[in-house]
Amino acid sequence: MTRFFKKGSPKAGMPPGSLVHIGEPRPQPVAVRVMAYEGERLVERSVENLEEVFPLQGPPAATWINVDGVHGLPLIEDLGRRCRIHPLTQEDIVNTGQRPKLEAFDDYLYVVLKMLTYDAAAGQIRAEQVSLVLGESYLISFQEARGDVFEAVRARLRQGRGRIRTGGPGYLAYALMDAIVDHYFVVLEAIGEGIEALESDLAQEPGGALVQRIHRLKREMIFLRRQVWPLREVLSRFTKTDSGLVDEATRVFFTDVYDHTVQVMETIESFRDILTGMMDLHFSLTSYRMNEVMKVLTVIATIFIPLTFITGVYGMNFRVMPELEWPWGYAAAWGLMLAVAGGLVLYFRHKKWF
Amino acid sequence: MTRFFKKGSPKAGMPPGSLVHIGEPRPQPVAVRVMAYEGERLVERSVENLEEVFPLQGPPAATWINVDGVHGLPLIEDLGRRCRIHPLTQEDIVNTGQRPKLEAFDDYLYVVLKMLTYDAAAGQIRAEQVSLVLGESYLISFQEARGDVFEAVRARLRQGRGRIRTGGPGYLAYALMDAIVDHYFVVLEAIGEGIEALESDLAQEPGGALVQRIHRLKREMIFLRRQVWPLREVLSRFTKTDSGLVDEATRVFFTDVYDHTVQVMETIESFRDILTGMMDLHFSLTSYRMNEVMKVLTVIATIFIPLTFITGVYGMNFRVMPELEWPWGYAAAWGLMLAVAGGLVLYFRHKKWF
Amino acid sequence: MTRFFKKGSPKAGMPPGSLVHIGEPRPQPVAVRVMAYEGERLVERSVENLEEVFPLQGPPAATWINVDGVHGLPLIEDLGRRCRIHPLTQEDIVNTGQRPKLEAFDDYLYVVLKMLTYDAAAGQIRAEQVSLVLGESYLISFQEARGDVFEAVRARLRQGRGRIRTGGPGYLAYALMDAIVDHYFVVLEAIGEGIEALESDLAQEPGGALVQRIHRLKREMIFLRRQVWPLREVLSRFTKTDSGLVDEATRVFFTDVYDHTVQVMETIESFRDILTGMMDLHFSLTSYRMNEVMKVLTVIATIFIPLTFITGVYGMNFRVMPELEWPWGYAAAWGLMLAVAGGLVLYFRHKKWF
Amino acid sequence: MTRFFKKGSPKAGMPPGSLVHIGEPRPQPVAVRVMAYEGERLVERSVENLEEVFPLQGPPAATWINVDGVHGLPLIEDLGRRCRIHPLTQEDIVNTGQRPKLEAFDDYLYVVLKMLTYDAAAGQIRAEQVSLVLGESYLISFQEARGDVFEAVRARLRQGRGRIRTGGPGYLAYALMDAIVDHYFVVLEAIGEGIEALESDLAQEPGGALVQRIHRLKREMIFLRRQVWPLREVLSRFTKTDSGLVDEATRVFFTDVYDHTVQVMETIESFRDILTGMMDLHFSLTSYRMNEVMKVLTVIATIFIPLTFITGVYGMNFRVMPELEWPWGYAAAWGLMLAVAGGLVLYFRHKKWF
Amino acid sequence: MTRFFKKGSPKAGMPPGSLVHIGEPRPQPVAVRVMAYEGERLVERSVENLEEVFPLQGPPAATWINVDGVHGLPLIEDLGRRCRIHPLTQEDIVNTGQRPKLEAFDDYLYVVLKMLTYDAAAGQIRAEQVSLVLGESYLISFQEARGDVFEAVRARLRQGRGRIRTGGPGYLAYALMDAIVDHYFVVLEAIGEGIEALESDLAQEPGGALVQRIHRLKREMIFLRRQVWPLREVLSRFTKTDSGLVDEATRVFFTDVYDHTVQVMETIESFRDILTGMMDLHFSLTSYRMNEVMKVLTVIATIFIPLTFITGVYGMNFRVMPELEWPWGYAAAWGLMLAVAGGLVLYFRHKKWF
Repeated sequence: MTRFFKKGSPKAGMPPGSLVHIGEPRPQPVAVRVMAYEGERLVERSVENLEEVFPLQGPPAATWINVDGVHGLPLIEDLGRRCRIHPLTQEDIVNTGQRPKLEAFDDYLYVVLKMLTYDAAAGQIRAEQVSLVLGESYLISFQEARGDVFEAVRARLRQGRGRIRTGGPGYLAYALMDAIVDHYFVVLEAIGEGIEALESDLAQEPGGALVQRIHRLKREMIFLRRQVWPLREVLSRFTKTDSGLVDEATRVFFTDVYDHTVQVMETIESFRDILTGMMDLHFSLTSYRMNEVMKVLTVIATIFIPLTFITGVYGMNFRVMPELEWPWGYAAAWGLMLAVAGGLVLYFRHKKWF
Repeated sequence: MTRFFKKGSPKAGMPPGSLVHIGEPRPQPVAVRVMAYEGERLVERSVENLEEVFPLQGPPAATWINVDGVHGLPLIEDLGRRCRIHPLTQEDIVNTGQRPKLEAFDDYLYVVLKMLTYDAAAGQIRAEQVSLVLGESYLISFQEARGDVFEAVRARLRQGRGRIRTGGPGYLAYALMDAIVDHYFVVLEAIGEGIEALESDLAQEPGGALVQRIHRLKREMIFLRRQVWPLREVLSRFTKTDSGLVDEATRVFFTDVYDHTVQVMETIESFRDILTGMMDLHFSLTSYRMNEVMKVLTVIATIFIPLTFITGVYGMNFRVMPELEWPWGYAAAWGLMLAVAGGLVLYFRHKKWF
Repeated sequence: MTRFFKKGSPKAGMPPGSLVHIGEPRPQPVAVRVMAYEGERLVERSVENLEEVFPLQGPPAATWINVDGVHGLPLIEDLGRRCRIHPLTQEDIVNTGQRPKLEAFDDYLYVVLKMLTYDAAAGQIRAEQVSLVLGESYLISFQEARGDVFEAVRARLRQGRGRIRTGGPGYLAYALMDAIVDHYFVVLEAIGEGIEALESDLAQEPGGALVQRIHRLKREMIFLRRQVWPLREVLSRFTKTDSGLVDEATRVFFTDVYDHTVQVMETIESFRDILTGMMDLHFSLTSYRMNEVMKVLTVIATIFIPLTFITGVYGMNFRVMPELEWPWGYAAAWGLMLAVAGGLVLYFRHKKWF
Repeated sequence: MTRFFKKGSPKAGMPPGSLVHIGEPRPQPVAVRVMAYEGERLVERSVENLEEVFPLQGPPAATWINVDGVHGLPLIEDLGRRCRIHPLTQEDIVNTGQRPKLEAFDDYLYVVLKMLTYDAAAGQIRAEQVSLVLGESYLISFQEARGDVFEAVRARLRQGRGRIRTGGPGYLAYALMDAIVDHYFVVLEAIGEGIEALESDLAQEPGGALVQRIHRLKREMIFLRRQVWPLREVLSRFTKTDSGLVDEATRVFFTDVYDHTVQVMETIESFRDILTGMMDLHFSLTSYRMNEVMKVLTVIATIFIPLTFITGVYGMNFRVMPELEWPWGYAAAWGLMLAVAGGLVLYFRHKKWF
Repeated sequence: MTRFFKKGSPKAGMPPGSLVHIGEPRPQPVAVRVMAYEGERLVERSVENLEEVFPLQGPPAATWINVDGVHGLPLIEDLGRRCRIHPLTQEDIVNTGQRPKLEAFDDYLYVVLKMLTYDAAAGQIRAEQVSLVLGESYLISFQEARGDVFEAVRARLRQGRGRIRTGGPGYLAYALMDAIVDHYFVVLEAIGEGIEALESDLAQEPGGALVQRIHRLKREMIFLRRQVWPLREVLSRFTKTDSGLVDEATRVFFTDVYDHTVQVMETIESFRDILTGMMDLHFSLTSYRMNEVMKVLTVIATIFIPLTFITGVYGMNFRVMPELEWPWGYAAAWGLMLAVAGGLVLYFRHKKWF
């Protein structure tokens, strides 16, 4: 259950703004990559030291600082001081248990969202927190670990295709969020395939393992829903924002990501409804099949029980049992047994039991 | 599950506005049909080349360009350039995984909605995306494949009955949307018949196949709901729009389509409620019938089990068994057995088991 | 399922405003009754021809034209032309598949609502569409067939009691809607009695027929809810309308009908909740009783099965079976059997099975 | 089900404002008690005739007229005429099937709310309608029968403690509503005790009677919810009203009652959730216990069935059965039987059936 | 159930503002601790008598008066008089059955919230009411008993780190509320661990005790939800308040606590969904396992029942039974029995029963 919220207990009681990394421990060192561009010009480098970054900054050039790893507290504090990031924002960046949100500060917008990947082996969705700090001339992005989702955006920046070089940090923020939301569909696809496999297995043979699989998929949908639901609100605010950080022309692109998010949400809801229906279906099928089994047992048992009783009667050892002496007694016993069996068969047919 | 969202993964990471056809592959070539009209005058032709279309355009004449097939990317790009359609709109036109929506751009309104047909053989609803681009003097409609739903609108245009020739592109957009929504009732009728058939089968004999049928219908309702739900919002915005593209007199007609959509939604909700009730009903019936079967088994088994025990006792071969020697022993055994059986029958009657 | 929406397919593709009667075929001819009144004066007649009506009209006199039967299309078209009723309104009047709604036009308000009756024989609620066109000096009401719900209003008009003669067409519209909504309580009463009968039957003995009855009542509640729910919105708009057609003094009466509608809705919701609870109750009871049956079977079977085995052992015909030769062998066998039976009885008592 | 709405059918078709008493018939005569006070002065009397009351009235003195019994129509009509109470209000006072509501008229506020008592013997909540008419200098309260809930308010008036003598009719209205809402907690307490008893019984032994008890409590919660839910809206409007009848200082007290009502609602919702959970729990437990019973039956039956078969084999009377002649045949048969039994026991242990 | 609301019955009928302690009886004496601070200066003491406190008060110094125990009515009355706390507020402070709320009075804000702890032994969440009275220069906090949640805040005050010494009473209120909400995560963690344990037990072996555990956890979630849900509204109002008591810079901190509360709520909802799913899972598993048990019983019983019948036939003692005389009769009987058994095994394999 720890996926559902990050344990915040070590922090309870500390003053707000205290930087404490909450999240999975990450062994890799923190890596900082900077891309600064202005029209034709593009400078890209991996930096060791923030000193190297800051001469690059300043309008009208746009700078994208990407930080892989939020466990490097001194670096984040340093960055916070240089860009005047509010202590509460710094605290949120390093605490990976945030829910998606948008916070407007005087100088920047702070966005939290979740990068999702489906770990097929564990049958679990993994969520990684991505924070964006969008200033007038810069965008700082924080990931928990190095991922390849942003690589396509980098490639577009290098090639300079489309609006990406000219759209400023606001457009870049859009491009990153779009890349993340597009990736949600990949997760949905994996889940959708799991549901399809379940449906065809269910038609074959219900089983305990199947119920567990339905249950696990439902739990993942609950998890997924929580990661995506608040994003809708975040993107809706982007499309209506009057902050100068996102210009009019870029806002229409946010509408597009908003639409995708709504589509993701609706798919999640549909999947939940289908999974709930499958649980019911499984249950009804199990119950129906038990009914069938019971009928066979009942039919066979109730036909033979009286017959066996009859054989028992004539297996008794009483000295005086007139029937046993009759020459046609054995044949009569068979006749009686066949009559009883036949009567019961007719009765069960009448009851439509087989 | 692929019906529930279109796989967007090939597109992940591409810049926005890249045209990639997402949807079922369609072998037929793209067909373009143009109808231009102004009061008495009506010109209709199938065109090969967009060059042929564009001299026709221009106020006050109204032009309807219908494109059957959205997999012809160059044609759509060409059309987009000529009519100044935003790249994001073009992208949405060729990506058939959109949800119904209305987007207002400077020069035009962009509407996405779904044409639905019920494939009785597969027991599935099929959705085809229809895009409308409504400009001041033109309406462009995009379908995934040639359908006959718009044929009635074409017939009315040719005959020039009612407002259709004089109402401009806004009224034409209404007429097309009305045709699509009217068709939803045909789908609902097919589903409704399926539900009625289910109800009468259920009263006969529950079975595993029945549960699967209920489940499948529920899934179709989930699918249907997703295709129709957002349309309500779209039409509501049409009835309130202050865009000059839809005049006051036409808006009242959109109210009418809006009403139909609400009615479709309510029918969907009623059907879902009824199907959920049927699942419960099936389950309760199965359980009740199992109960009946169990009672018969129990009654027969518990009556004969003690009797068979008695026969077993007197079938034992002990040397000294006084009862066996009694002349009226056999009759006494029958007496005992009848007494036991009678007692149990009275007990079960008292328990109201049969 | 055809009750849930009227088949609109014959109309698909026709231009809006085409008059096509959709609804049950009605053999009776259309009847028109007119009541015109002003203070002390009241003229009432059944008319054959609309010519007879129209000299009556004109402020300040108020005229109520009641049309029984909406399948007389020429009459409705004629009426529409004379009173300048919008073609869409005319279309809605003759299409009995409308949902309750209020539409404001320049000259009149158009109201659709449903008259409900409970057909006890079929166990179904029947809905009949009533349309009201409320103009400045007239009210036109359309019913599908002649009913007696409006008779009480006519009686009050004739007697001239209360405000009805002086309140104008707005007050008359209120009086008719009030009569219809009051009649809903009669339907609820019938349903409520059905639920009470179910509850007492359920306490006696669950059965398959009972489940079907619960299911049918639930379906009727779904149907009822759909007919009443939108009326709430209609009446709420009446209480807030600033249309000159309903004066201030009349609005408070609409508040009263609104209250009744809310009460009807709440009763429907309560009934649905109770019926859902009853389905669960039935299911739990069935399951509990099966449990009881199983216990009896188990107790009797498991007590006698080992005993029968013992008799079987001593019924074997091996040449060398020392026990059989013992003089007290038979008594010992009985002793063993009683001991086994006693042990099992104690075990089952310990398990609280009986 | 008649508790859920009052049968209004006798009234259908009557003009609004007709006084018809709808509710339980009450044999007692209507009693009127008047308390008039102003600062130090307090006059209290039971009156026979309204003539006695009206000289008392008039600002700045405040008058509380309490009417026990709403079946005295002439009295209510007389009171209505004297205090200019709208005919619709009079109609609502005598029709005890109102839902809680607040209606503002020119001269007074009309409030309906429900006094609830738990009838432990019948296991049912009883609701009695209380109407308050709050004018500038008077408050008229109507109860269906004489109750003792208002007695505490009367005592405070007599003692003149707190604000009650100086707060005017608005504060008095608050005091009465507060007394009624406080009494809801007494009802909740009784229900809560019922739930607790159920929970401990459920842990002991599930049974059919238990399910019925859960069902009945759920139905009471549905009933209770309906009586209380609309009150929330009523009190919320009191806290925001700008009617001169409730002054600023009194409004904060209404906030307090509002809070209590919200708390009552939340408790009702919690109880419903718990009861729903208990139904599931009962069902799961029954099902689990049946499983246990089945296992015992299966284990015993399946162990002895093969053994009994073996004894049957050697109980056959074929002339040539070599095993029967073997001197150690009997011992061998026992050996075989023990081996079979042991094997089955191991198999069931492996399956974890016992 | 008494946890769900505090019994208010002793108070019913008393005038508002009467101080009656409602809650668990507490034997400890009430303790008052005062911390007054202004920039560098900090005075801290435990006081016996309120006289000692009040000279400390007065702007610009900020004073925090913490009262452990709300059963000391005279002290609270005294405090109320000195700080001009409204009688209704005093009443709410000593009645521990309040729901979380924020009330704005002229001079102060009154906040109620719940401190939660998880009592692992009883498997129950315990709620303790905390009241805050936030004035311009003071903050008074009331706890039901001495707890250690505020200790961390005291430590920060003593050390004077961060804003706490300079932020005034508004910031102090934030710090206390933050400490309480942070503690909710500790409770969630305990519950989350319980759910995880349940899930792994469920995969092993379902049982009656398991269902009870799921039920109990669900009940705790209902309880938890009630304590936290209204807090969301309280904090939302803090972030938007224009009361001068909370300055602009502090409001952003309240946004942070608000975020945490939303996260707590979402976790509660996820947990409820998961627990509901687990109930279904348990039920489906039980039902599936019963099915498995039934199949084994059926297979074994139905194979041996006909065989036992055959042995019964040849155990009969008829004088004339030709088969018994055949020399190969015994072998033939075995042959018949094996054929029947084999046939049934093939049939069951065909039915996929094992």
